[in-house]
Amino acid sequence: MDSKEKQEGLSRRDFLKMSAAAGVGIAIGASGLGAIMGTGKSSSTKTAANAADADKGDSIPMYGEHQAGIITPQQTYMYIASFRITAGDKANVVRLFRDWTKFSDLSTSGGTMKTGDNPMLPPSDTGETLDLPASSLTVTFGFGPTFFSDAGKDRFGISHLAPRYLKDIPRMARENIDASISGGDVCVQVCAEDQQVAFHAVRNFIRLSTGYATLKWMQEGFISATPGKTPRNLFGFKDGTANGLHDSASGYDDVVWAGKDEPAWLQGGSYMAYRKIRMLLEMWDRTSLTDQEATFGRFKESGAAFGAKGEFDTVDSSKLPDTSHVLLAKESKQSIHRRAYSYTDGVDPRTGNVDAGLLFISYQKNPEEQFIPMLRLMQNKDKLNEYTMHVASALFACPRGLREGQYIGQNILEG
Amino acid sequence: MDSKEKQEGLSRRDFLKMSAAAGVGIAIGASGLGAIMGTGKSSSTKTAANAADADKGDSIPMYGEHQAGIITPQQTYMYIASFRITAGDKANVVRLFRDWTKFSDLSTSGGTMKTGDNPMLPPSDTGETLDLPASSLTVTFGFGPTFFSDAGKDRFGISHLAPRYLKDIPRMARENIDASISGGDVCVQVCAEDQQVAFHAVRNFIRLSTGYATLKWMQEGFISATPGKTPRNLFGFKDGTANGLHDSASGYDDVVWAGKDEPAWLQGGSYMAYRKIRMLLEMWDRTSLTDQEATFGRFKESGAAFGAKGEFDTVDSSKLPDTSHVLLAKESKQSIHRRAYSYTDGVDPRTGNVDAGLLFISYQKNPEEQFIPMLRLMQNKDKLNEYTMHVASALFACPRGLREGQYIGQNILEG
Repeated sequence: MDSKEKQEGLSRRDFLKMSAAAGVGIAIGASGLGAIMGTGKSSSTKTAANAADADKGDSIPMYGEHQAGIITPQQTYMYIASFRITAGDKANVVRLFRDWTKFSDLSTSGGTMKTGDNPMLPPSDTGETLDLPASSLTVTFGFGPTFFSDAGKDRFGISHLAPRYLKDIPRMARENIDASISGGDVCVQVCAEDQQVAFHAVRNFIRLSTGYATLKWMQEGFISATPGKTPRNLFGFKDGTANGLHDSASGYDDVVWAGKDEPAWLQGGSYMAYRKIRMLLEMWDRTSLTDQEATFGRFKESGAAFGAKGEFDTVDSSKLPDTSHVLLAKESKQSIHRRAYSYTDGVDPRTGNVDAGLLFISYQKNPEEQFIPMLRLMQNKDKLNEYTMHVASALFACPRGLREGQYIGQNILEG
Repeated sequence: MDSKEKQEGLSRRDFLKMSAAAGVGIAIGASGLGAIMGTGKSSSTKTAANAADADKGDSIPMYGEHQAGIITPQQTYMYIASFRITAGDKANVVRLFRDWTKFSDLSTSGGTMKTGDNPMLPPSDTGETLDLPASSLTVTFGFGPTFFSDAGKDRFGISHLAPRYLKDIPRMARENIDASISGGDVCVQVCAEDQQVAFHAVRNFIRLSTGYATLKWMQEGFISATPGKTPRNLFGFKDGTANGLHDSASGYDDVVWAGKDEPAWLQGGSYMAYRKIRMLLEMWDRTSLTDQEATFGRFKESGAAFGAKGEFDTVDSSKLPDTSHVLLAKESKQSIHRRAYSYTDGVDPRTGNVDAGLLFISYQKNPEEQFIPMLRLMQNKDKLNEYTMHVASALFACPRGLREGQYIGQNILEG
């Protein structure tokens, strides 16, 4: 591919498509920089869904039965971006999703779009990860209710393929939802062990969306844990202890993966529930340890529920305070797969307090049975409500995994 | 210290002081949790100022000739918080700075204030780093002009100890500074290899300031680099290449450390210049590689200046475009020590564009000679101005390092 002449007639988008189609490791000399397109920099690869003990260099493959980033052990950093599709016809949506899929393939394997192709065009990659490894990057796509039908309009002729349970999370007591940072037609959850690698991916998804979609909102989060330990949220309590209860193939089938009652494209996929929950840290930090622990129904340091000794011991409801978080979670008799991150957004100019909290993200096969009743119970009764405020909300249906050569959403748009 | 009775008569602030004074590793059984106060979790320690090859477990000591976090190799995450002191008298300022110093000591060595002391009081630590190592945490304090004299008033009787060059950075061409996220009486720069560890520290500085100071603004940043390589900013270009030119003890004396012409407390300290620079990523990403490289005067991938081969080769001004960033930096004939971070702040609701950019931070011994002329030249001429906007600004004087037993600012307040 001696391509100086060819490239000059191509847009950046065309060049990306050409480059991605040509695969990995092809040196292109047109710019004299001798850069390599799509170099796989990963030091090792693991199965997509369940790569334990990831290190920074690791690459998590994006192909498989399920999308990565759902039951993948939580990486340290996350960006989630939600888009409004502006393309008026299905062909352009397909174009966007093909580009996004190619870029996902490239970036999750630790590559970049080649920099320095035709110097008279913008570089095909923004460049900030040129020296960085794959960093366990995963990309998880989901579709919101308005992708299938918006104000009664079937925009892309796909409303018959809408998932059974995909609708906006109903209004809840005590919430204060900001519509401008909620919902959306399509979301991309990007997770990695390195924030710069995660941002690079989401930024290039935004870049590739030009002319096809606009960014509605974007949120970043972080969570740290010593390997093998449950991470702690900004209230200092462990978050995600109950995930251990369904940590098996059959457990994930029961809790996470959508089944035969759903359109084929969603079977093996999952519903992502998203709530941005502001935590009133200043108020919490002035609360006694006794009250903090009674609010959760857990001991702060060990993570054990009241009446239990260890974090993972069986929870005895009779030992839990009436309106405690753990009791309500248990009373709802439902499991969800939690994958929450903390966020810090600087100072709230209205109050002078820190704007920080939890990006609650959970995956479940049936939000109407699993997530929404639990949320309703908690919004009505949870003692935690004194210290929190839900400020954003979204529900997305995340398709099953891709086979190599497929693009995200193909089974919907060509279904 | 069998202290159930004793503790009950103490405020949290008193307890912190008592705990910190009692040193490391004292088990206190009052809550039955058996927690350890101030456990040093670090796997190794290095000299404060120049710990190379830090890993997540490392502890960087806070005592020494210079404050850590100035020429310390850049950690991956940073928070910077600026406070307005509300305490009306010097004694209360001393109280705050003593508490901050004790907490710095504890957290930089990987410890936490003990959780679970008197359960009827708020926990003495917020708890989110209970399972996390020191993570190369550094804490760097600096004082703004208004600490010494505010609207002509010498608030704490220290105006005679004001540094020679400490005043607000003058208004510049093409800037759009938001006063609410600029300046301040005292700032804390917290850096670590782990964002949760960094946030824990800044959050506890805020907590300990209750009644003595209010948070004015807080900003978070990140930067990633493969060890031994210069990190890249969000324009995809290497940032900090020129730091190599003064990387020696005499180089730091020439560039960074304040000298004999300053008050004693500042000798061995430095001036921190802070500029929050919004980068117009969408516009930059539509710019050709040729124009991007001409804007910097460097090649994007290699980082070499125009006319040079390697990133660190001597720069030949005759090869650089007229208004390029590197030419202007060279023309100003001044060195500064750069320690910049990238930031991402979600979506700008006014434009729908990503709000992201650079937290420019530099340290220098004489801002009037080194930083301000360079800034003025660049704000007037730099081709980069087409793609950037300065939105916040501050200058702080960072004291020399502490000996064990001293508290931050002691040489000013008791000077």
